[in-house]
Amino acid sequence: MLDLDLSSVGGIINHGGTVLETARCAEFKTEAGMKKAVSTLKKHKIEGLVVIGGDGSFRGAHQLSNRWGVPTIGVPATIDNDIAGTDYAIGFDTAVNTALQAIDRIRDTASSLRRLFVVEVMGRQAGFIALETGLAGGAEEVIIPEIDTDLEKMCQKIVRGYQRGKRSSIVIVAEGSESGGAFKVARQIGDRTGFEVRVSVLGHQQRGGTPTALDRVLASRLGAAAVQQLAKGDTDKMVGIISNRVEVSNLDYAWKFQKQTDLSLLKLIEILSI
Amino acid sequence: MLDLDLSSVGGIINHGGTVLETARCAEFKTEAGMKKAVSTLKKHKIEGLVVIGGDGSFRGAHQLSNRWGVPTIGVPATIDNDIAGTDYAIGFDTAVNTALQAIDRIRDTASSLRRLFVVEVMGRQAGFIALETGLAGGAEEVIIPEIDTDLEKMCQKIVRGYQRGKRSSIVIVAEGSESGGAFKVARQIGDRTGFEVRVSVLGHQQRGGTPTALDRVLASRLGAAAVQQLAKGDTDKMVGIISNRVEVSNLDYAWKFQKQTDLSLLKLIEILSI
Amino acid sequence: MLDLDLSSVGGIINHGGTVLETARCAEFKTEAGMKKAVSTLKKHKIEGLVVIGGDGSFRGAHQLSNRWGVPTIGVPATIDNDIAGTDYAIGFDTAVNTALQAIDRIRDTASSLRRLFVVEVMGRQAGFIALETGLAGGAEEVIIPEIDTDLEKMCQKIVRGYQRGKRSSIVIVAEGSESGGAFKVARQIGDRTGFEVRVSVLGHQQRGGTPTALDRVLASRLGAAAVQQLAKGDTDKMVGIISNRVEVSNLDYAWKFQKQTDLSLLKLIEILSI
Amino acid sequence: MLDLDLSSVGGIINHGGTVLETARCAEFKTEAGMKKAVSTLKKHKIEGLVVIGGDGSFRGAHQLSNRWGVPTIGVPATIDNDIAGTDYAIGFDTAVNTALQAIDRIRDTASSLRRLFVVEVMGRQAGFIALETGLAGGAEEVIIPEIDTDLEKMCQKIVRGYQRGKRSSIVIVAEGSESGGAFKVARQIGDRTGFEVRVSVLGHQQRGGTPTALDRVLASRLGAAAVQQLAKGDTDKMVGIISNRVEVSNLDYAWKFQKQTDLSLLKLIEILSI
Repeated sequence: MLDLDLSSVGGIINHGGTVLETARCAEFKTEAGMKKAVSTLKKHKIEGLVVIGGDGSFRGAHQLSNRWGVPTIGVPATIDNDIAGTDYAIGFDTAVNTALQAIDRIRDTASSLRRLFVVEVMGRQAGFIALETGLAGGAEEVIIPEIDTDLEKMCQKIVRGYQRGKRSSIVIVAEGSESGGAFKVARQIGDRTGFEVRVSVLGHQQRGGTPTALDRVLASRLGAAAVQQLAKGDTDKMVGIISNRVEVSNLDYAWKFQKQTDLSLLKLIEILSI
Repeated sequence: MLDLDLSSVGGIINHGGTVLETARCAEFKTEAGMKKAVSTLKKHKIEGLVVIGGDGSFRGAHQLSNRWGVPTIGVPATIDNDIAGTDYAIGFDTAVNTALQAIDRIRDTASSLRRLFVVEVMGRQAGFIALETGLAGGAEEVIIPEIDTDLEKMCQKIVRGYQRGKRSSIVIVAEGSESGGAFKVARQIGDRTGFEVRVSVLGHQQRGGTPTALDRVLASRLGAAAVQQLAKGDTDKMVGIISNRVEVSNLDYAWKFQKQTDLSLLKLIEILSI
Repeated sequence: MLDLDLSSVGGIINHGGTVLETARCAEFKTEAGMKKAVSTLKKHKIEGLVVIGGDGSFRGAHQLSNRWGVPTIGVPATIDNDIAGTDYAIGFDTAVNTALQAIDRIRDTASSLRRLFVVEVMGRQAGFIALETGLAGGAEEVIIPEIDTDLEKMCQKIVRGYQRGKRSSIVIVAEGSESGGAFKVARQIGDRTGFEVRVSVLGHQQRGGTPTALDRVLASRLGAAAVQQLAKGDTDKMVGIISNRVEVSNLDYAWKFQKQTDLSLLKLIEILSI
Repeated sequence: MLDLDLSSVGGIINHGGTVLETARCAEFKTEAGMKKAVSTLKKHKIEGLVVIGGDGSFRGAHQLSNRWGVPTIGVPATIDNDIAGTDYAIGFDTAVNTALQAIDRIRDTASSLRRLFVVEVMGRQAGFIALETGLAGGAEEVIIPEIDTDLEKMCQKIVRGYQRGKRSSIVIVAEGSESGGAFKVARQIGDRTGFEVRVSVLGHQQRGGTPTALDRVLASRLGAAAVQQLAKGDTDKMVGIISNRVEVSNLDYAWKFQKQTDLSLLKLIEILSI
C-alpha cells in the first residue's frame, strides 16, 4: 500500500512504464483471492477503485462491482488498443511512435539492391500497432493476426517491386500473426526470393519511453473523469475518449463488443506502397 | 509545375515541413489572379484540385469550385487545429509533441527555489497547442487568446505554490494571447513576484520535425479520401477524421462553424498542477 | 544531507538536470561560509569531496583543499564546455544535440523565399555550443562572444546567398555575444535586408533532457575516477577525458589555462554553408 | 556517376544512412576489377579519391594509391568504431545513442519481479557499441566478442541481484559474441534461472537515424581535411580526430594497429550495476 499524494505523483507525467508496478495476479482469479482483495479494500477504507488496464482487468473490476459492491471505474490502457468504448487506449500512441522511429531508421539504410527488412512489432491478438506503424512508416507489407497472409503471393509482389526499381522493402509482422514471428517470416521470404533479409525484433521498448502528448492528455482526462464518476456514485463503468469527448460506457462493453481492426488501412498500405 | 509521381514522392513520408514549397499568394485574392489560376489549371489539364491547408486556403478552394467549376476537395492541415469538421488537422499532433519535448527538458532544470519558466508556443487565434501542451507537460499556468488572463491573480497563485513547496513553475503562453508574448509576460511576473524568470520562445521548430504517427496516418487517409471524392465527381467538400472514421463535410463548414477550444482542459490543468 | 546509496541513485542515469538540486551559494564565498562548510563536512565525517561543476565550483574546491585540508577532486560539468583539462565537460554533448534538433526542425520549414531564422543558444562567455550546433546544423552564420561580428557584412553575404538561390538562412547567436540576443540581432538583420526574420530562443531546454550516451559514459568514467583519486589520497585535482583516456590535472588548470574555442570551425561553417 | 555539387548535397546533413548508395563490390577485389576502377577514374578526370569506410575500404584505397598512383585519402566511417588513428569513426556515436534509447525504454517496463531482458546490438568483431551502450544504459551484463563469457557465473550473479532486491536486469549482447545472438543467450539464461526472459534485436535501426551532433561535426571536419590533404598532393593517408584535433596517419595504420576495446569499461559496468 502506498498513498498517492501530491508529492509522490509529482513529476511522473513524462515517465514511461508504470509507477504502480502492478502485475497480473493469479490468486485474484480465485474466489478466496477476490474475497481477500475486497477485505483489503475495506480495511484501508477505500471507497472506490479506478482500474487501469484492458479486457482482463475490466472483467475483474466488473466482478468487484457486481458481486461485492465495490464502486469501480475502468480506464482503458493497453498498447494493443483493442478495447471498445474509446478511440484510443493509453499507451497505444506511444507504442506506435516508438515502432515508427525504428522503421524510419531502418528505411535510411536501404542503400543496396535486393535487401529486405522484417520488423516485428507487438500485437498478440490484434494488428492495430502493425497497421498504424505500417501505414505511417511506408511499409510494403503488413502481416497481422486478423488476416491469413499468403506468403507466396506476398513474395511475388515484393520481387515485382524490385523489378520496377524499388531498392528496399519493409515487412511489418505483428508478434501474434499466424505466420510466426519475424525470424520465421524472414527465413521463408529469403528462401522464396533469394534476397538478403534482415530482422529487427522491437520487443519491450514499445512498452516504455516518454509518453506522447496524446497519451498524456488522454490519461489526464480519463483519470479525472474516472474520479468524477466515482464521486457521482457511479460504478461498473469505463471512461473513454470518442471524438475528443469523454464518454462513459458499461464495463462489459469492453469484452462484449470487439473493437474491429480497420482493415481498410491494409488496402491503403497496399495502394501507397506501390 | 512539378509532376508528383511514384519516384518524386518516394521517401517523403518522414520529412517535416512541406515538399510542395507553396506559400500565400496575394495575387490569387484578386479577380485577375483567380482567373489566371483557373486558366493555368485548364492549360495543364488538371481535372481536380486537392487543397491542403486551413481556413484561408479553403475559402479560395470554395471560390474555385463555386464560381469557376473547378472540382476541389480540401484536406485540413494547420498546426493550430482550429478547423471544424475533423478531430485533428495535419501538423497539430507533431507541433504539440515538439513543444512538449521542450517543456519536459525545461522541467528537468528546475533545481533551485523561486525559479519560473515562461514558454511561448504557437497559436495566433487559438490556444489548442498551448492547452494540450500545458496539460501534457504539467504546466502550472496557460495563457491563451480565448480567455482574458488576470496576471495579478495568476502571480498570487504562483507565489502560493512556492509557499506550499513547489520548486518550479512553468507558464505556457500562446503567441496570440492578449498578454503579449513570453518576454512581456515574463517581465510582468518578475516585477510582481520578484522571482527569477527564464524565457523560451519555441518558434518555427513547431512547424517542422519528423511527423508523428498520428499525423502520417491522418495525412495518408485524408489524401486517399480526397482523391476518392474527386474520382466520384464530388466538389466543394473537405475530408476529415471524426472518431477514427473519414467524414466528408462542405468546405464552408470550416469557417461557418468555429471549432471550440475545449476550455475544460484549462480547468483540468488547474486541478492537476496544484 | 541525503545519503546516496544503491537505491537512491538507482534509475537516475537517464534523467536530465540534476538530482542533487544544488545551486550557487553566496554565503560560501565568505570566510564564515567556508568555515561553516568545513565544519559541516567534519560533523558528517565526510573524508573526501567530489565537486561537480565548472570554473567557479573548482575555485571553491581548490580553497577547501588548500586552506582547510579537505580532500577534493573536481569533475568538469558545464554545458559551455569551457574547461581546460578535458575534451568534453558533462552536459555539453546533450546541450548541443538538443539545440541541433531545434535547428533541424526549423530548417524543415524553409519553404518560402526571403525568410531568415535567428536562433539563440546558450553560451555566456564562450561559443562552443553555437559553433558545434552551427556546423552540425548547416547554419549560414554563427555569432559568438569570442569574435566581433560585422553585421553589415553578414547581411550582405546573406543577401548574396538568396540571390544565388538559397531559400532560407539560419543565424545562430550565442546568448553572450556582443550583438545582443536573438531578438536584437533579428531586428537589425530585418532592417538591413528587408527580409522576414523569425526568432527562436531555446533557453533552458538545453540544460535538461535525457543525456546522450557520450555524457553518460563521460559521467560514469569521471565519477569512478574521482573516487579512485580520493581513495589514493589525492586532492586538489580534476579528472578529465583526453582522447578517450582519463587524465588527471591540477584543479587550478581549469582557470589558469583558458580552453580555446576552435575558430577553425567558424571558417569551416563559412565554407560548408556556401 | 553523379556530380555532387552545391544543390545535390544541400540539406543532406541531417539525413541518416548514405546518399551515395555504394555497397561492397566483389569485382573490385580482382585485378581486372581494379583496372576497370582506375580507368573509370581516368576517363572522368578524377584527380583524387576520398574513400569513406572502414578497414576493407581502406585496403582497397591503399592499393589504388600504391599500385596505380591514384591519390587517395581515407575517412573513417564505421558504426563499429574499430579503426585506429581516430577517437571516433563516423556513425558510431549515432548508433550508440539509438541503441541507448531502446534500452532506456526497455528499462521503463521493468515493473514485475524476475524479469530479464536480453538486447542484441551490432558489433561483429568488436564490442565498442555493446560496451558504451551497456555503460550508458546501466546494463547489468555485457557480452562481447573480445571476451569469453561464463554464462553459468553470469546467471548466478543475476540471481543474486534479484535476491538483493533488483527488479529487472538487462543483458546486452554484441551480435558477434561467441555465445551466439540474443535468442540463444536468452534461452540459456531462461533455462538456468527459470526467469521470464524477453528479447529485443535492434538490427539495422542502428545504421540509420538522424545523425548526432558529434557525427556531423566529425564528418564535416574530416571531409574538409581529406580534401585539403588531396589539394596538398598527399596520398595513401587517412584523416582522424584525436582529442578534438584533426590528425593524419598512414592508411595502413587502420589495419596494422588494432584499436583496442577499452576493457576497463567492462569492469566499470560491473561496479556501477551492483
